[in-house]
Amino acid sequence: VNVAADKLREQIAEILRVWGMPADYVEQTADVMVETDLRGIDSHGVGMIAKYHEWGHMGGIAFDAPITVETDLPAVAVVDGGHGLGHPVGVFAMKLAIEKAAAGGVGLVVAHNSNHYGPAGYYAMMALERNFLGMSMTSAPGAAMVPTFGKEPKLGTNPIALAAPARRNPPFVLDMATTTVAIGKINIARRLGIPLPEGWATDDHGRPLTDPAEAGRLRHLSPLGGTRELGSHKGYGLGAMVEILCSTLSGGAIACVNQRLGRGDARGHVGHFFMAINPAAFRPAGAFEDDLDDLIDTLRATAPADPDQPVLVAGDPQAEAKEMRLREGIPLADALVEEIRETCRSSNARFMLDG
Amino acid sequence: VNVAADKLREQIAEILRVWGMPADYVEQTADVMVETDLRGIDSHGVGMIAKYHEWGHMGGIAFDAPITVETDLPAVAVVDGGHGLGHPVGVFAMKLAIEKAAAGGVGLVVAHNSNHYGPAGYYAMMALERNFLGMSMTSAPGAAMVPTFGKEPKLGTNPIALAAPARRNPPFVLDMATTTVAIGKINIARRLGIPLPEGWATDDHGRPLTDPAEAGRLRHLSPLGGTRELGSHKGYGLGAMVEILCSTLSGGAIACVNQRLGRGDARGHVGHFFMAINPAAFRPAGAFEDDLDDLIDTLRATAPADPDQPVLVAGDPQAEAKEMRLREGIPLADALVEEIRETCRSSNARFMLDG
Repeated sequence: VNVAADKLREQIAEILRVWGMPADYVEQTADVMVETDLRGIDSHGVGMIAKYHEWGHMGGIAFDAPITVETDLPAVAVVDGGHGLGHPVGVFAMKLAIEKAAAGGVGLVVAHNSNHYGPAGYYAMMALERNFLGMSMTSAPGAAMVPTFGKEPKLGTNPIALAAPARRNPPFVLDMATTTVAIGKINIARRLGIPLPEGWATDDHGRPLTDPAEAGRLRHLSPLGGTRELGSHKGYGLGAMVEILCSTLSGGAIACVNQRLGRGDARGHVGHFFMAINPAAFRPAGAFEDDLDDLIDTLRATAPADPDQPVLVAGDPQAEAKEMRLREGIPLADALVEEIRETCRSSNARFMLDG
Repeated sequence: VNVAADKLREQIAEILRVWGMPADYVEQTADVMVETDLRGIDSHGVGMIAKYHEWGHMGGIAFDAPITVETDLPAVAVVDGGHGLGHPVGVFAMKLAIEKAAAGGVGLVVAHNSNHYGPAGYYAMMALERNFLGMSMTSAPGAAMVPTFGKEPKLGTNPIALAAPARRNPPFVLDMATTTVAIGKINIARRLGIPLPEGWATDDHGRPLTDPAEAGRLRHLSPLGGTRELGSHKGYGLGAMVEILCSTLSGGAIACVNQRLGRGDARGHVGHFFMAINPAAFRPAGAFEDDLDDLIDTLRATAPADPDQPVLVAGDPQAEAKEMRLREGIPLADALVEEIRETCRSSNARFMLDG
């Protein structure tokens, strides 16, 4: 089923409203989710709605929580998300970081008492409206990444995003998990019945696991690098860096720490990191954008190994997906449509994706 | 040959002095280089001295250049390294970032017109003296990383470093190139005559290269991830992120851009990124250190795949190397001692490592 972006936005908004979200949060959250699906990041858009429903029922998400500023200095702030869904927390905190960057060149805002916020890249990209650079990272309420030399998961997929404005090129938008792949890729291989490459996941003994069904069940993801020989300690180190900047700096909970110390569920206590940088505070206005154009052009001009597969720049596949999906609609798998229908039914929300 | 740290420091200082470095730069640079060798990062300490000599002769390094602040706002600054060696530039810029973090919670300083500055981790660790978090990244004057889908190098090994203070544990210190391995690891395999794993380097056609001699000659390094299947586009994206934050934000040169646009050598025009964060501006004093201790303890407590190889935390191998080398001296290969001797001879510096 292909669904127009506006229709999907209305459907998501309807569900969030009946869950008790105030109107401004509804608008922000629906925009994050639809934009994510438009950009082809299917794992982090409307595909999460059933999970949010489940977590809300478990008491982990306060959909109408007020978002407050705990600490506020000219260049830094700490935001308390009130245990709400992460999307409005992210929009609030990134706006604050952007205001600070407009005033003084940089704004660094961390948030805690939050939840899953969708894709890190959305918040980084908010800075582009002002021709600023944006960064965002987030920790997660559960562990999936197995540290190098270990055999049990400790960190989340802990993504890093950077968006930077160019002039004649689309912006540079990096948005990457610090695991080799996200769990969604393993599920795709499972449905297709094809073995996983060594370096995506490990078994209960910490050995590379190639059986996609078993990997989907265990959810033991390898850090970027895949194996020690190919630098998985770097992916593990980046994942820990994200955890420190998001959770340790903000006072957020860390799932593996909570579990070890018997502190209970980390859901509702997730930490995020946001930074905005105004390049015009560093260099004459426009110089950054011009130089980034030169860099992007030079990267694109790299001689390709295969003439039919040109060298890309971070954000290219997502920009292409958005162009196509704005034109043709957002493809939703039948199983996902049924999930949304069921979520509507049990939430007493109107189902709007028929026909 | 094992050399005591103080003796190596005197030898390096002697050479830098005869190259025309002022006394304060000499002290700072020798400290960075010796600390690097103590921490076992042999590729970035005194092992670079012959290269600095060569680049100095080529006119790429102004050893006595004044370091100036171009732009100075409360939370951000731009430093002009005057085309000098990167070490004093890095120390100067990171000190400025730390002062800004002490005053307002965060300091973000970029530098341009600089050169190779040794290991990114040294500058990040400077923040630890104040119980701050430190970050540093640097671009490079030459290209070594081949972008995903490409067959020619475009970016440097572009490292990322984060240091964060704990209380009862040693600090967390991540310091990693965004390539799978540094060129030094390929040279080690070449000397041993053992094939490289697929994912370290590529050949002239962009295909994985396992011949260590050929890989050492070509210097076509793969981004972290190694292959597209294992996420090399993420390592490539991180390398580009480092380039943007170091060079595009500071007005530094980018080797591949200069080459494409006929702008000449990037040496002397390298850009760096420095950030310091005072956690006490975000949370009650000491809370960050306590929570980082809990995270470090939890990561170390990960059930190991092999009981004889416990799970480590970033910085552990380097801290262990330092302890041993402070006790037993810094091991220098014969070939390196001869390089230092030759550098002394041709610089009219006293050679001090005999006996």
